[in-house]
Amino acid sequence: MAATAIGLDIGGANLKAATADGWAVTRPFELWKHPQRLAEELSALARELPSDGPVAITMTGELCDCFETKRDGVGQILAAVGVAFGTERVRAWSTAGRFLTVAEAEHATLEVAAANWHALATFAGRLVPDGSALLVDVGSTTTDVIPIADGRPIALGRTDIERMRYRELAYTGARRTPLCALLGSEVAAELFATTLDAYLILKMIAEDPADCDTADGRPATRHHAHARLARMLCGDIESISQEQTRSLARKAFDVQRSRIADAVNAGRGRLPSAPSAAVIAGSGEFLARDAISLALPGLPAGSLISFRERLGPALSTAACAYAVAVLSEWEAR
Amino acid sequence: MAATAIGLDIGGANLKAATADGWAVTRPFELWKHPQRLAEELSALARELPSDGPVAITMTGELCDCFETKRDGVGQILAAVGVAFGTERVRAWSTAGRFLTVAEAEHATLEVAAANWHALATFAGRLVPDGSALLVDVGSTTTDVIPIADGRPIALGRTDIERMRYRELAYTGARRTPLCALLGSEVAAELFATTLDAYLILKMIAEDPADCDTADGRPATRHHAHARLARMLCGDIESISQEQTRSLARKAFDVQRSRIADAVNAGRGRLPSAPSAAVIAGSGEFLARDAISLALPGLPAGSLISFRERLGPALSTAACAYAVAVLSEWEAR
Repeated sequence: MAATAIGLDIGGANLKAATADGWAVTRPFELWKHPQRLAEELSALARELPSDGPVAITMTGELCDCFETKRDGVGQILAAVGVAFGTERVRAWSTAGRFLTVAEAEHATLEVAAANWHALATFAGRLVPDGSALLVDVGSTTTDVIPIADGRPIALGRTDIERMRYRELAYTGARRTPLCALLGSEVAAELFATTLDAYLILKMIAEDPADCDTADGRPATRHHAHARLARMLCGDIESISQEQTRSLARKAFDVQRSRIADAVNAGRGRLPSAPSAAVIAGSGEFLARDAISLALPGLPAGSLISFRERLGPALSTAACAYAVAVLSEWEAR
Repeated sequence: MAATAIGLDIGGANLKAATADGWAVTRPFELWKHPQRLAEELSALARELPSDGPVAITMTGELCDCFETKRDGVGQILAAVGVAFGTERVRAWSTAGRFLTVAEAEHATLEVAAANWHALATFAGRLVPDGSALLVDVGSTTTDVIPIADGRPIALGRTDIERMRYRELAYTGARRTPLCALLGSEVAAELFATTLDAYLILKMIAEDPADCDTADGRPATRHHAHARLARMLCGDIESISQEQTRSLARKAFDVQRSRIADAVNAGRGRLPSAPSAAVIAGSGEFLARDAISLALPGLPAGSLISFRERLGPALSTAACAYAVAVLSEWEAR
């Protein structure tokens, strides 16, 4: 078996794995519901990996409310990774810009908690070695906007708390964001529908009848998205028209795009010079693109670097996992 | 056994029962998670009731996303009530202001769906027989603001869709509202904490270590509320101070109070004359009181009629169930 480096990104809703030579998988796993099953899930994943090389990890799952504290979450995630891969094989990326052993990581929990943005930005920096750039990574749940100068991330925030404050983290994403967090008093304050439904309706995300990772557990189709959005208006498919839910979906899109554009603006303000490029990533690249055209209208057309176009959909969706795998190989050289 | 009328209010999060002579119980039941268990829960409730009298029902649970449509939800709820009590004994309050048999209700689903506000307002109207008044009922999940003239509700909306539009229904409540629906981009767009947590921290709701009906399933105590609010800031109890979560709780209170005050203002505008009284009800009476003092500063101090003070906490929390029970007795006279 090849010994190419493996990257793992352990989030609250998805486990992502990739190898430095370009294999990738994203698997939905509701960590917050089943924290005790993480080691088992990772072991199953380990058996499918096409490599027995070193394992580079990054995580965000420690924020899940199944854990009392982040320290507790990081500890349990490190333990589960140890069970699945053996502690010796594992290194965790830290926001100090280097890999830590599991033993080191256990004593630097706040450096390895939510460090995936830093890994991705470090990787992205290699794509734009000179001048100023912004990385805009719109995931299913959150968005990272990281300023990059001369090939290195120059973010001010380290922990998620700081990153929210500096708007390097916008807690809004292309699939899991509850619509009530975007539309406030206009809609039912319930988890009846998410941004996935808005983008299904607007045809920005493709239907997937096999995907039931939705607000009501019914399929990710336009029909069911319409029903979910109707419920946000306290109605149903018999009382709310498709025009009404399309209009609501459009409002959600406008609010979300403008929140991401605000973060892009804040990031641009932190760059030493006007950005010469923007790197877009994540399952919500379409949102990143729209927000950038709103916030950076002067950016030349050819200077948008899309992970999706460069790497394909599988690697792009698991971009943080791929990034730590590649960083691990670079470090080994 | 006495044959006093029984009232039932079947919501998405609670089953409430009361008798016209003043017995009441509120039982948490997550209908949206276990719709198939409703008949069984109601049967258990039936065995505890101190009466075998007629059963008057009202509901809001049909909006739960376990049901494809409201018609479907009303049908399944009526069927479950029939199993538990026998169809012959049951009548459902309709927004036309009268009781329907189960057979009639099955053909008038939109009249019996979410009719509990109408029952409560009809009951409240008897308390203010002359002039203009407002009913402000702040529940765990939603708030009803119903204009009353000469002892009768004069609401414009009938369905929840219309009631949201006319602001007679504000989808915001004292316990279950996700804080992200109030605080938008300031906090994580997750169901990490609800208004219950804000009011635990502000000491507006008393602690109850036995109550685990919270965002993370941990107890309804100030300690855990602090942890839940810390998570909304992407932090934890080790990184976020109690001052920070208290300040966040206060913001949530301010937003919610002003949303309810807006609805009160809209309701006042619909009255034929300045209100001479306001009736406040629900587990969030404290919020109703604050919102009214904001929206109706001219209302004389003695003209606030509190269900909680008149009926005590148990009947007041189950006020809609009590209202249909009393309406049923009045109708029988």
